[in-house]
Amino acid sequence: MAERGTLTAEHLEQLKSIVGAEYVFTDEESFQKYGRDETENLLFYPEVVVKPRTTEEISAIMRLCHENYIPVTPRGAGTGLSGGALPHLGGVLISTERLNSILEIDERNLQVTTEPGVITEILQTAVREKGLFYPPDPSSRGSCFIGGNIAENSGGPKAVKYGVVRDYVLNLEVVLPTGEVIWTGSNVLKNSTGYNLTQLMVGSEGTLGIVTKIVLRLIPHPKFDLLMLVPFQSLEKAGEAVSAIFRAGFTPSALELVEIDALRIVSAFVDSSAVPLTPDTEAHLIIEVDGNHMETLMAEMEAIAGLLTEYECGEIYFADDAQQKAELWKMRRRVAEAVKIAGYTIEEDTVVPRADLPALIRGVKAIGANYNFHAVCYGHAGDGNLHIRIKKEGTVNSQDDPEVVAGLRDLFALVYDLKGTISGEHGIGLIQKGFMDIVFNETQFRLMRSIKKVFDPHNILNAGKIFDA
Amino acid sequence: MAERGTLTAEHLEQLKSIVGAEYVFTDEESFQKYGRDETENLLFYPEVVVKPRTTEEISAIMRLCHENYIPVTPRGAGTGLSGGALPHLGGVLISTERLNSILEIDERNLQVTTEPGVITEILQTAVREKGLFYPPDPSSRGSCFIGGNIAENSGGPKAVKYGVVRDYVLNLEVVLPTGEVIWTGSNVLKNSTGYNLTQLMVGSEGTLGIVTKIVLRLIPHPKFDLLMLVPFQSLEKAGEAVSAIFRAGFTPSALELVEIDALRIVSAFVDSSAVPLTPDTEAHLIIEVDGNHMETLMAEMEAIAGLLTEYECGEIYFADDAQQKAELWKMRRRVAEAVKIAGYTIEEDTVVPRADLPALIRGVKAIGANYNFHAVCYGHAGDGNLHIRIKKEGTVNSQDDPEVVAGLRDLFALVYDLKGTISGEHGIGLIQKGFMDIVFNETQFRLMRSIKKVFDPHNILNAGKIFDA
Repeated sequence: MAERGTLTAEHLEQLKSIVGAEYVFTDEESFQKYGRDETENLLFYPEVVVKPRTTEEISAIMRLCHENYIPVTPRGAGTGLSGGALPHLGGVLISTERLNSILEIDERNLQVTTEPGVITEILQTAVREKGLFYPPDPSSRGSCFIGGNIAENSGGPKAVKYGVVRDYVLNLEVVLPTGEVIWTGSNVLKNSTGYNLTQLMVGSEGTLGIVTKIVLRLIPHPKFDLLMLVPFQSLEKAGEAVSAIFRAGFTPSALELVEIDALRIVSAFVDSSAVPLTPDTEAHLIIEVDGNHMETLMAEMEAIAGLLTEYECGEIYFADDAQQKAELWKMRRRVAEAVKIAGYTIEEDTVVPRADLPALIRGVKAIGANYNFHAVCYGHAGDGNLHIRIKKEGTVNSQDDPEVVAGLRDLFALVYDLKGTISGEHGIGLIQKGFMDIVFNETQFRLMRSIKKVFDPHNILNAGKIFDA
Repeated sequence: MAERGTLTAEHLEQLKSIVGAEYVFTDEESFQKYGRDETENLLFYPEVVVKPRTTEEISAIMRLCHENYIPVTPRGAGTGLSGGALPHLGGVLISTERLNSILEIDERNLQVTTEPGVITEILQTAVREKGLFYPPDPSSRGSCFIGGNIAENSGGPKAVKYGVVRDYVLNLEVVLPTGEVIWTGSNVLKNSTGYNLTQLMVGSEGTLGIVTKIVLRLIPHPKFDLLMLVPFQSLEKAGEAVSAIFRAGFTPSALELVEIDALRIVSAFVDSSAVPLTPDTEAHLIIEVDGNHMETLMAEMEAIAGLLTEYECGEIYFADDAQQKAELWKMRRRVAEAVKIAGYTIEEDTVVPRADLPALIRGVKAIGANYNFHAVCYGHAGDGNLHIRIKKEGTVNSQDDPEVVAGLRDLFALVYDLKGTISGEHGIGLIQKGFMDIVFNETQFRLMRSIKKVFDPHNILNAGKIFDA
């Protein structure tokens, strides 16, 4: 265990001189707000919340904390689902909310340079106005920060066609735990120059550095899209249909699965009576295609619909106009929030090879029955990425319930057997690290811990996330 | 400088007992063959060449060499252009040529699992027979190994639409320099579970481990493609046209630039009289579009052709049938070989943001004039990745000529100013490492050297490539 320093009154004064006294907070309200994220009901107070504005200020904070072995937790918008932003060791919480400028939209090169505290949807809208497209959009895109998306290597519904965050990151300015500042790469589409520090940083959950500038590649925005909702009598059949679509040569721009329980809950929650819920249905697929030629899309959608009849689908609902599409997407995007409120507090983020979704779904149901919890499934079926929400009477946090923990160990063992893994887009953070031994062996842990030490010799930056040092 | 062991007669016996005496070579002919790659005219003799068949054999070799501090150079097909496979420290050369099986084509999940010694084109053909597509195809695809492609993070002409090798690698089995064997990830499309060891391995040029199994994602093969050759009176105008195509919302499946000198040389070399070379031309663009709907492609090609008239292009040649397409691609693929034979021995692999190609091209010509060498440019213009072949009378290897080295330093400084970098797809290897200080500072070097040390504490595996430890 590394040495751990204590935050003193003198350190507080130094923090104030770095960022200005008005951006240093030690009040109860700030601790309540910055001590949580969207992960279950966990709360940890930091010792101080600071809100720097610049790379240089973050660098100065890190130098101070590095020299004094003070724990630092970086935080975006706090929408994370694995506890990555929770200040579980106290110390200094650095909010990136004031680094919130889009610095340049480079229309010549189809790139955008942004600070990390920009809300993902604001970034998407800004580039959309130039006809450009930044596809990765987690369900929380209306509130999450692009910096947090990079920390967790977020995905979202478009990933099935367009890839995840890591596929768009070209270059990052990063403040290292020592306070040093580097760029990880270059603003180019191809790079075989040295080790890929950019990709090492993406998805490292704020444990290797604090990202302060981001260069993303963009693509031309597709002109049209079509959307449909397809009911299935059997959840497994829905899962089988997913891989059939790809095997037939189609690549939808979204291919989401929502189990009927989840859809009923969210449907009431957002009052989306416009979207029909067929009786005798176990699950729905939401399928979108996009492109620049409407006729091509119509033909594709028809061909996919034809294929689905082989998997016992019910009557297909086509979202006809922009409003119906928005309605349907709103429902999908708010599933997690709605089912959480309905008592499904534990969210898992399993991912398996696409064709093994039916096996995963069967496994989830069996494991739930064994360990006395109820699970609803939804998520990015096209990627094999299934979110599983768990409700167990009397349970608030998964960490506290031995039966839930045992069930999750069975679930992750199944996922590993299927050549999948624990997290597809939410990260490991604080709450999943106890399961990492299921998918990593001692050699892999040694490599990751040693890499952490290369970047953070004093183990101060988001220490104890992903794994214990 | 780390300790360095000597290969003894006893070690040779141990190597024979690991792989079988018939796969251990110390003859002159083997040293001549395995002492070279396609990089200029460099030759370094290893002390022994071994040809293992399995992961276990490679692991045993690495344990032996790790314990005895013996340098090891891993080698694919030896088609590299940066000297990555050259055994410049002597020691053991491990050829992966016998790990040459495609292990599984998973049509359910659109994945392939292969050994590293499979020729890239053979892999592409095998998956094509199942209607699947593995897009990255370096010009050397007919002879290079997929393992080497992973070591260098290769690209090729399709990268502009489909991405480079790293975009297709899901999971790798790797023998570490210590002899330990790990898998770097999972067989899934999205992964936020721990540090991205897979992407750290891709492009690490055989310095962090020897890849022994590879899981690649595949995509449905597009049904149709169209190809055209477009002459430009001005090289710069051709460069400007490239970014205009993307700004207009098109994403060609290939967008190559070839300067007229290079095209004349290769045209004579392969006797491609079928492809017309217009007079008063400085450069050509080769433009391909692909997709599943021929009418859409025809409309796209026409629209692109229309756009190009604004950039003073000459008469466009449309490759009408499969044979004309093959002829044109053959010409493009053999440019490097042809110009090398014509005396352009030094190949650079610069990459800049796409719209800055004209600035790079102007710079190349000016630098060549300053330092008395002649340069021809060609490459993957759509990615901003320009290969520059240099010919200087009386020069054989770039390392030997101070004027060439000074000119290259100017060139890379320009590239860095344009926010580009030294290598887009060939790697740094042995011959570019002297220029790394132009694009990396001491902090970045420290991180990379420390990561190398995490994986290879005795600094034996491809030591002295990319950077000195």
